[in-house]
Amino acid sequence: MSDYLLPRLQALAPYTPGEQPQDKRYLKLNTNESPFPPSPMVLDALSREQVSALNLYPDPSCAALKRAIADEYGLAPENVFVGNGSDEVLGFSFMAYADAAHPMVIPSVSYGFYQVYAALLGAPARKIPLREDFTVPVEPFLSCGGMVAIANPNAPTGIAMALPDVERIVSSNPKNIVLIDEAYVDFGGESALPLLSKYHNLLIVRTFSKSRSLAGGRLGYALANQAIISDLERVKFSFHPYSINRLTILAGVAALSDKPYFERCVREICRVRVETSNQLLELGFRVTPSSTNFLFASPPSRDGRGYYEALRQRGILVRYFAQETLTEYVRITVGTQEQMERLLFATKELIEEGKA
Amino acid sequence: MSDYLLPRLQALAPYTPGEQPQDKRYLKLNTNESPFPPSPMVLDALSREQVSALNLYPDPSCAALKRAIADEYGLAPENVFVGNGSDEVLGFSFMAYADAAHPMVIPSVSYGFYQVYAALLGAPARKIPLREDFTVPVEPFLSCGGMVAIANPNAPTGIAMALPDVERIVSSNPKNIVLIDEAYVDFGGESALPLLSKYHNLLIVRTFSKSRSLAGGRLGYALANQAIISDLERVKFSFHPYSINRLTILAGVAALSDKPYFERCVREICRVRVETSNQLLELGFRVTPSSTNFLFASPPSRDGRGYYEALRQRGILVRYFAQETLTEYVRITVGTQEQMERLLFATKELIEEGKA
Repeated sequence: MSDYLLPRLQALAPYTPGEQPQDKRYLKLNTNESPFPPSPMVLDALSREQVSALNLYPDPSCAALKRAIADEYGLAPENVFVGNGSDEVLGFSFMAYADAAHPMVIPSVSYGFYQVYAALLGAPARKIPLREDFTVPVEPFLSCGGMVAIANPNAPTGIAMALPDVERIVSSNPKNIVLIDEAYVDFGGESALPLLSKYHNLLIVRTFSKSRSLAGGRLGYALANQAIISDLERVKFSFHPYSINRLTILAGVAALSDKPYFERCVREICRVRVETSNQLLELGFRVTPSSTNFLFASPPSRDGRGYYEALRQRGILVRYFAQETLTEYVRITVGTQEQMERLLFATKELIEEGKA
Repeated sequence: MSDYLLPRLQALAPYTPGEQPQDKRYLKLNTNESPFPPSPMVLDALSREQVSALNLYPDPSCAALKRAIADEYGLAPENVFVGNGSDEVLGFSFMAYADAAHPMVIPSVSYGFYQVYAALLGAPARKIPLREDFTVPVEPFLSCGGMVAIANPNAPTGIAMALPDVERIVSSNPKNIVLIDEAYVDFGGESALPLLSKYHNLLIVRTFSKSRSLAGGRLGYALANQAIISDLERVKFSFHPYSINRLTILAGVAALSDKPYFERCVREICRVRVETSNQLLELGFRVTPSSTNFLFASPPSRDGRGYYEALRQRGILVRYFAQETLTEYVRITVGTQEQMERLLFATKELIEEGKA
């Protein structure tokens, strides 16, 4: 840290991403990537000819991509914002609506980045504790006097909030933005999409990183009414208009065009999730009901860190959160059937060795 | 704009990027892209196999890329920061060092984004007028009491500041960051790189968008001492750790590995620049001395807008700036020899028609 850094930022605790070892020595079940490659249509779209056009700037309006996303959800392009990963979309959203005078209200356990954005922007963040069963309580978010941000389904718990509860929160906060982060919704959550036409304060954020197999491409988007989208465009064009590269724009359009592939991947991940969850339960794990592509699971030993470390030694990475209420659990990305068999095999051995 | 947008942002005038028509109907000489495709090594690096790994997140530490950049300039990886285009690097830099209590000092005519960042962050921006000959005056930047940001060579004028002048500015502002934006330095400017080991307040920002033919890939970087780099990492990991996609990391490393191609492209652009400049001078233009891949030129009519519009009607895009002191000029990207011949042919006709 230099002496020049703004005092506010000197106290900041940045986000810690999951480990990303680049050497492929590990079975990576720690950052909720899809175990499947992008659609073959994406592979075809990113041709050598397209790569050779990288000397040219991308379309900063991302018109083709917005149109494709709008078509997918029966919206107009004016209802779509696109960014460099949903992280950037979230970042621009908080820049637009939260600051020292405009607080945020978030679950105490959720995507860890929300509170980092709050600290970065100097916005107070009121954290609402989860219920004992790890569900997000509704009442504290009603008429709560701040910008709401909720991941639905939530992370790392994997638990979804029912649409009527989401609607109660949105409708009770007409003076504040309610941001619903639907990064994992394709794996079983109920989208707030049907509420968009009814509420002017609803902002839905999504990503191509999970169900669309494009974590490495960096592509996220927001769905909202036209006025909110134009707010986000205003921030983007005041910070980084060209944030999405040419190839990623093409990849996004191509990924959307291959619906059968998308559905097949999602179906398979959900099938493997249920199967893996059942087997973990049989082994004496606690597993929360997941509507996502990961399982939040506590080993028979109830020692999340011990289980995480023992798996790591066997070349399997899962995610452990050293946060009070979460220490008995780890978060396990749902991979392919083969990958889950490897996880279960290692887990059985660890249980026998008293390490899980 | 929605009612929810922060009041400070409602008054903001976002940046206006150069037009990016996607239909290839135009000869684009308006956004300073390289007329040459990326190195064949970049094309090879972005293989189908690599595209098929886009389901995995990129390395957020960008270790391989930092190492390649560090090697290129004889620095350590700890002296290198990488971002999603130099726009993002600039954005993070201003987030780190400028706010309502920490003003910026910038030339009144320079990269238009500096003042947009200032407005976005609520930082006062003191604008130093250029001299009559469009050079950046040194004296007003000495001990100026704010974070300095200067593009060197400057845009849209193309004029470089000599290294001793840069050093006077850096050395006289030990309590503030001096950011030197060297987006165009490879085309003839003097880099501030030799000053890095002497001054702790120097922050150099660069891009792969111009001399490395990767505008569409979005890749920029900063060179500075370790403490400043760690400030920028802190901001990045509090906003968007995964901002550079997998393919762009590969493209950056590959582009750096093909030095002969880089040097050939730069040499050719400089050759064509000199030739084009001479021909414009012969036609009665005023042309500033360019150390960049563009020419800042005023037609015999001294009517920048008229010349811009007449060229546009002929399918040639250049950039016109409706800013007081610049209205007699247009900014013309240096393309290939053939592209410049087309520009000169059209220009001669326009002069005959009284439109230039």
